[in-house]
Amino acid sequence: MEPRAAAGSVGIVTPRTQRFEQPLELACGRTLPGYDIVYETYGTLNADCSNAVLICHALSGNAHAAGYHSPADRKPGWWDNCIGPGKPIDTSRFFVVSLNNIGGCAGSTGPHSVNPATGRIWGPDFPVVRVRDWVATQRRLADLLGIERWAAVVGGSLGGMQAMRWAIDHPERVRHCVVIAAALKLSAQNLAFNEIARKAIVADPQFHDGWFLEHGTLPRQGLAIARMIGHVTYLSDELMGDKFGRELRSGSFAPGSEADAEFQVQSYLRYQGDQFADNFDANTYLLMTRALDYFDLARDFGDDPVEAFRRARARFLVVSFSSDWRFSPRRSREIVDALLAAHRDVSYVEIEANEGHDAFLLPIPRYHDALQRYMEQVHADLAPRSVADAR
Amino acid sequence: MEPRAAAGSVGIVTPRTQRFEQPLELACGRTLPGYDIVYETYGTLNADCSNAVLICHALSGNAHAAGYHSPADRKPGWWDNCIGPGKPIDTSRFFVVSLNNIGGCAGSTGPHSVNPATGRIWGPDFPVVRVRDWVATQRRLADLLGIERWAAVVGGSLGGMQAMRWAIDHPERVRHCVVIAAALKLSAQNLAFNEIARKAIVADPQFHDGWFLEHGTLPRQGLAIARMIGHVTYLSDELMGDKFGRELRSGSFAPGSEADAEFQVQSYLRYQGDQFADNFDANTYLLMTRALDYFDLARDFGDDPVEAFRRARARFLVVSFSSDWRFSPRRSREIVDALLAAHRDVSYVEIEANEGHDAFLLPIPRYHDALQRYMEQVHADLAPRSVADAR
Repeated sequence: MEPRAAAGSVGIVTPRTQRFEQPLELACGRTLPGYDIVYETYGTLNADCSNAVLICHALSGNAHAAGYHSPADRKPGWWDNCIGPGKPIDTSRFFVVSLNNIGGCAGSTGPHSVNPATGRIWGPDFPVVRVRDWVATQRRLADLLGIERWAAVVGGSLGGMQAMRWAIDHPERVRHCVVIAAALKLSAQNLAFNEIARKAIVADPQFHDGWFLEHGTLPRQGLAIARMIGHVTYLSDELMGDKFGRELRSGSFAPGSEADAEFQVQSYLRYQGDQFADNFDANTYLLMTRALDYFDLARDFGDDPVEAFRRARARFLVVSFSSDWRFSPRRSREIVDALLAAHRDVSYVEIEANEGHDAFLLPIPRYHDALQRYMEQVHADLAPRSVADAR
Repeated sequence: MEPRAAAGSVGIVTPRTQRFEQPLELACGRTLPGYDIVYETYGTLNADCSNAVLICHALSGNAHAAGYHSPADRKPGWWDNCIGPGKPIDTSRFFVVSLNNIGGCAGSTGPHSVNPATGRIWGPDFPVVRVRDWVATQRRLADLLGIERWAAVVGGSLGGMQAMRWAIDHPERVRHCVVIAAALKLSAQNLAFNEIARKAIVADPQFHDGWFLEHGTLPRQGLAIARMIGHVTYLSDELMGDKFGRELRSGSFAPGSEADAEFQVQSYLRYQGDQFADNFDANTYLLMTRALDYFDLARDFGDDPVEAFRRARARFLVVSFSSDWRFSPRRSREIVDALLAAHRDVSYVEIEANEGHDAFLLPIPRYHDALQRYMEQVHADLAPRSVADAR
């Protein structure tokens, strides 16, 4: 069976590239001249354009959230288990929009693009981008697609931060906000891990102060280390124990050279690191982790998240996972507490799961059930609201 | 007031270097020719040599556990808050021995020493050393000092692993075994962090496959990254939050270049990494983390720690700290459960502390109280046992 024929799949999808000529003023004070956004859509926009769902991606995500780009593709989009006909984000009901954020390295304008002012690749000169800038570009895309109000803005991790920012910055344009495995801001420990990952990249002599493309090279070692650090923090201690334990690759102790990976977990991590290093832009990694660092929902509101959420009009679903120690349930409960104090409508689900932060990408039954039920309610809300809006 | 005059201090101490000419067969199958051990002693060995306490150091430790090397020293030894007259390990009662393990970089023979077979620095050719090898060298030192049986062998973290190994390998030579913030073996997550730290070191082009000294350089960047990774895992999320939060160094957001550390926690980590990189040998770091990786107390006993502890004759004190996520209380309870199942005499204290794994080095009142009371009992046990032994 070809993948596109699989039940519940959106099938073959074709990414689109949209050029935006109007310059964008960024939060850092610099202005990005015209830029490209690569995006995909799944499902059909209804007549009153009320059934659109925006998917916001996390650190290393891209526009390809569901389906396949060709029949030969072995892997579907990064959230294919969640998006498709009959799936929690049901494309037979919703028109789903997924884009690659600016600063990314999967088609949209980013550090690997050419800076029109110099004719050189942007590289490390690409401006610092913050979550609010992504929301601004997503708003422009919504305008272009004729989407006045999202039925839902959905995101996990850094994507959940974008969803919250949407609800604050454009309250009238978000009906529902789904915030999965996120936080109001990073903890000092989160900041520390990001700092170490960046240090590994900039310390790689192949990084060349960010001009590696001009030097015809890539900081593979640094990127691999950064990814390995990230990867350990995405998984739970328990899951790593279940998955690898202390299994030796050879079955017995035979201390070898540093080049040998003796434990299964070592070779797994090395593989993850090397794969990533071949496919991700180092400047984008720096940019994305700094966007994470800078995100602080309450900062413009006297450090009071309740004050921030008073601006929101959306209904919220907040989801956390028991073994997630990167964005623990405690961080999600902070979001929920602030929403309740701001008299917002919020549902909260804490999912018992062994998979750590990575759980948000996995088809865990109780998680997908909760998301499916919530999205059914989002769909049920569409009709009466549309009537009300038309008055 | 000069430090040596401080109450409770052992004052000025002079490290001694002991040459061992007899080659040592290592667990890896290789043989280390004659080697040096640097050690310090505090307090006075009693007439029947029954009051000796061995201190086993952790990953980056050394022989200088207490006191000062000169009146000009600004910092005392690494466990000075715990060792001295009137302190938990009371030098007015005990004769305390602290040594630098082989493979270390603080005086004892290690990768920075000259390999007599080649006349070159050992560098990466230094043999793989395991916890049992350290115990073997410590036993030789005990023989030389006339210590037939330790009143106690004490260690935290990797030091606790040495203490347990002593109790198993030389049951008749250990009266009490004090195991602080340790584990029967590393978890997959522990292994993963060690792997990433080593990867950072070997990826540093200044590492030169371990021959950096011959190249007149040091892999400072790699070592700094390794230390930063270690450091984050030594601290708790809570402590980092309390200590740094998201405090900005400049007091406001002004996204700068990668060279800038904007958050306090970044500059703190960078400082820690740089300090370490100037003072620690990269080959030793690799060796020490691999000794940690390989340690597995039950491995020779059909993976049954109960079977392992059946060999022990010592009484045990096991201590853990609530916020230690590197060697969590759960890992200490595994030790305690195995000891109980083996019908060993064990006391267990779980200390409520915010400081993570690092807590074992800090003068937390309840921790030091518990240790002091236990060591008082160790001292009280000396006299009757000596009589019994003499029969």
